[in-house]
Amino acid sequence: MRLNIRLIIRILSIVTLLLSLAMLPALCTSLLYGESNTVKAFSLCIVPILLFSALLAFVSNPTSTILRIRDGFLIVALCWVLGSVVGALPYIVSGVIPNFADAFFESASGFTTTGSTILHDIEILPKGILFWRSFTHWLGGMGILIFAIALLPALGINALHIAAAETTGPSMDKLSPKMTDSTRILYVIYIGMTVMETILLLLGGMDLFDALVHTFGSVGTGGFSSYNDSIGHFDSLYIEMVISVFTLLAGVNFSLYYLLFLGNWKGFFRDGELRVYLYIICGATLLITAVLTIFGIARGIGDAFRLAFFQAVSIITTTGYCTTDFSLWPSAGTMVLFLLMFVGGCSSSTAGSVKVIRIAVFIKLIRRGIYKRLHPTAVVPVKLGDRSLSSQVVSKIASFLLLYLSLFLFGTLLLSLDSFDLITTASSVAACLGNVGPGLGDVGPLSNFSGYSDGATVFLSLLMITGRLELFTILFLFLPGFWNPDR
Amino acid sequence: MRLNIRLIIRILSIVTLLLSLAMLPALCTSLLYGESNTVKAFSLCIVPILLFSALLAFVSNPTSTILRIRDGFLIVALCWVLGSVVGALPYIVSGVIPNFADAFFESASGFTTTGSTILHDIEILPKGILFWRSFTHWLGGMGILIFAIALLPALGINALHIAAAETTGPSMDKLSPKMTDSTRILYVIYIGMTVMETILLLLGGMDLFDALVHTFGSVGTGGFSSYNDSIGHFDSLYIEMVISVFTLLAGVNFSLYYLLFLGNWKGFFRDGELRVYLYIICGATLLITAVLTIFGIARGIGDAFRLAFFQAVSIITTTGYCTTDFSLWPSAGTMVLFLLMFVGGCSSSTAGSVKVIRIAVFIKLIRRGIYKRLHPTAVVPVKLGDRSLSSQVVSKIASFLLLYLSLFLFGTLLLSLDSFDLITTASSVAACLGNVGPGLGDVGPLSNFSGYSDGATVFLSLLMITGRLELFTILFLFLPGFWNPDR
Repeated sequence: MRLNIRLIIRILSIVTLLLSLAMLPALCTSLLYGESNTVKAFSLCIVPILLFSALLAFVSNPTSTILRIRDGFLIVALCWVLGSVVGALPYIVSGVIPNFADAFFESASGFTTTGSTILHDIEILPKGILFWRSFTHWLGGMGILIFAIALLPALGINALHIAAAETTGPSMDKLSPKMTDSTRILYVIYIGMTVMETILLLLGGMDLFDALVHTFGSVGTGGFSSYNDSIGHFDSLYIEMVISVFTLLAGVNFSLYYLLFLGNWKGFFRDGELRVYLYIICGATLLITAVLTIFGIARGIGDAFRLAFFQAVSIITTTGYCTTDFSLWPSAGTMVLFLLMFVGGCSSSTAGSVKVIRIAVFIKLIRRGIYKRLHPTAVVPVKLGDRSLSSQVVSKIASFLLLYLSLFLFGTLLLSLDSFDLITTASSVAACLGNVGPGLGDVGPLSNFSGYSDGATVFLSLLMITGRLELFTILFLFLPGFWNPDR
Repeated sequence: MRLNIRLIIRILSIVTLLLSLAMLPALCTSLLYGESNTVKAFSLCIVPILLFSALLAFVSNPTSTILRIRDGFLIVALCWVLGSVVGALPYIVSGVIPNFADAFFESASGFTTTGSTILHDIEILPKGILFWRSFTHWLGGMGILIFAIALLPALGINALHIAAAETTGPSMDKLSPKMTDSTRILYVIYIGMTVMETILLLLGGMDLFDALVHTFGSVGTGGFSSYNDSIGHFDSLYIEMVISVFTLLAGVNFSLYYLLFLGNWKGFFRDGELRVYLYIICGATLLITAVLTIFGIARGIGDAFRLAFFQAVSIITTTGYCTTDFSLWPSAGTMVLFLLMFVGGCSSSTAGSVKVIRIAVFIKLIRRGIYKRLHPTAVVPVKLGDRSLSSQVVSKIASFLLLYLSLFLFGTLLLSLDSFDLITTASSVAACLGNVGPGLGDVGPLSNFSGYSDGATVFLSLLMITGRLELFTILFLFLPGFWNPDR
């Protein structure tokens, strides 16, 4: 079967067209703050992309509207790479980030909701650029493409394979028999959370610009801020709590909110993954609180708890906001955070990394392995909450875990050629692959990724996209078998 | 079923009795070098242990000679812990290592063929102590207990469950239908290698003492030396090559030598695990050679290759000898070595860590996982060489891999309370759990483990034993279900 190239081109041009329109709010921000250079830069991006995309969508003229699995994977992979390139243009054109590799990194970091940056000082940047940077988090939070999915069926295109290549977590519970309906429900929840957090941050004394920037960063679990000290800038317990609670909520499976919406509270709290998620947060918070108290890092146990809870939630949800430079914590504290980088939120949330459900299965598999050594003939199903997982799902999850581990190791090995120390290198890979944001050592929360060579910067950007698309979608592109349709 | 306590006591006392006899060569060394204090120390250890063990073996008076699975696991676990305690006595009594935790660490490091040390300066130690230290490697290389296995059947005890709890690698190919026979064949090979290497080292200009110490360290894949600079002390290409070749040979599945002995060269080289083992060594050597050349660490490419080959073989076989301080290498070089710490030699070799066969299955599982995403209905068996592995073996290996990973992470988290940097902490755990020896950072090859607290030292010692017994045997002791026979 050959790829449906014409249709692929049409879909990609629709995506870039939508992206150019998505730059309009940033343009408006620049206008509002009277940043004439930035207004010019955005105009220079929007108009040509809009016209070129529209032209391309028009001339592509697909003869068939059928998409196969391979088409779906290719569209999603290209869409994220191309989207990151297009999203990088405002940085380049405005001159804020003149180097392409760096601009691509910043853009990919935005769309994948990673939140790593190569910028030294963000407080001197134009507001329009800062807005765009954070807005890419918000767009990426639910997938640029799910955007388009709502449109595709209207064009007579079956979007199922696109969703399969882009959804997070091992299985997507269907909320509603029709794809577009469930997408719409997710969007309503997402927008609702955005509005609520913005209002709460405004009540905490933020101006509208800061409130929007930090809302985008938290509901998208991204982590871009408008201040060099991130959330530490505000030094406000209220703002920390609002942001913690909303990142925590953004890390929950969005399908569960639909249950709440239907009034099914019991089903909400009976969810096995949600419980493990909350247990891990509690456990990590207590561990870090103990470490910070014992080593005298915090002013008393209350202060330790405040730092620990904010940081644990920020890292497990792969947001990456900080209230302190945790890379300077005692090893035991940073080690807990480093492990959390590999957990991530629940499936079908905006968070990245491995996802809680797979970590839960990981733990169950180990327990089963030990049990089966003592009772070799026992048949032990892997259960999560009330559900038994099929052996097919379990083996899929196990191979995901091994692949994630080996990508992390391979990435660290390759990146170590840039000769940073191994903690910096390993945490850079963990932070990018898991869409977390800051790492440890030289890429700690108050530092940035600008020290890496251009090659390493692009590699880390691709790792972000690979992690965001749950590994396989990007890896397929490197398989010869993928390009050879007869195999 | 209740444990057969009386029989367990009898077997353990036979083991300690044998251990006290095993101290005789070290005593002779002390006599030869006229070290009166050390002679006294060994005598003070040997006589009481010998008498007490003999008495205990006599009065234990077991009523039954039946051993069940649980008995087997318990005997093996206790034997290694008790053996390490008994082996630590000469260090304590002679005053070389007055602290119990440190002496236990040194002794466990010897028996488990790890080769990590807490000693600052080994060149000032009495020869008798150095001999004992290295001789524990040689004893541990084939398992203290396999020692006893040759005796147990003579006592009418079925030793099968003991072997199951102690063998390395996922499956032990039976060389000969009778256990004792195959044990005897392995011993003949082991002793033959020992004699050959000793002669070759003598020819290289070593004195008999140094030749024996370094032979014990290499055929046992241990790594204790009699010099602070390890093999770097000799600065001799010939000695490096002899040691490299013998550690490499010690990392091969010993059953394969039986094939060679039968003249079956084809079967030898067709072994899937052996091939992967050699590929990994070649790949790692080339990678490190490239890194050392590019970063200008070595004097030319020849020197780089010499350093790379020695170090790659030393680490993959979990020996731990060094010719240079590799902890000072560029990150990419140390990263390769760090990864090799998780490979180890082939199954049924004297090397520790994960073992090549499991790493090979790990890679195959990942490839299968990727393939099955594109071809969801395909049935893909996991093959190694000519053999297809049963799904039972594959799932056993997968759960071992996940368990090894989680033990490494758990160990690193716990050890990080000692507040070394994370590279030191993580590499300490990797080096001890994998029985490698030196780590990176503050526990690099020219450094030692003396900086850790007593609790951490004992924990690392237990990790060595846990790794040596392939995790499960020791972990079972921490399961409530293990102690509750009705479950």
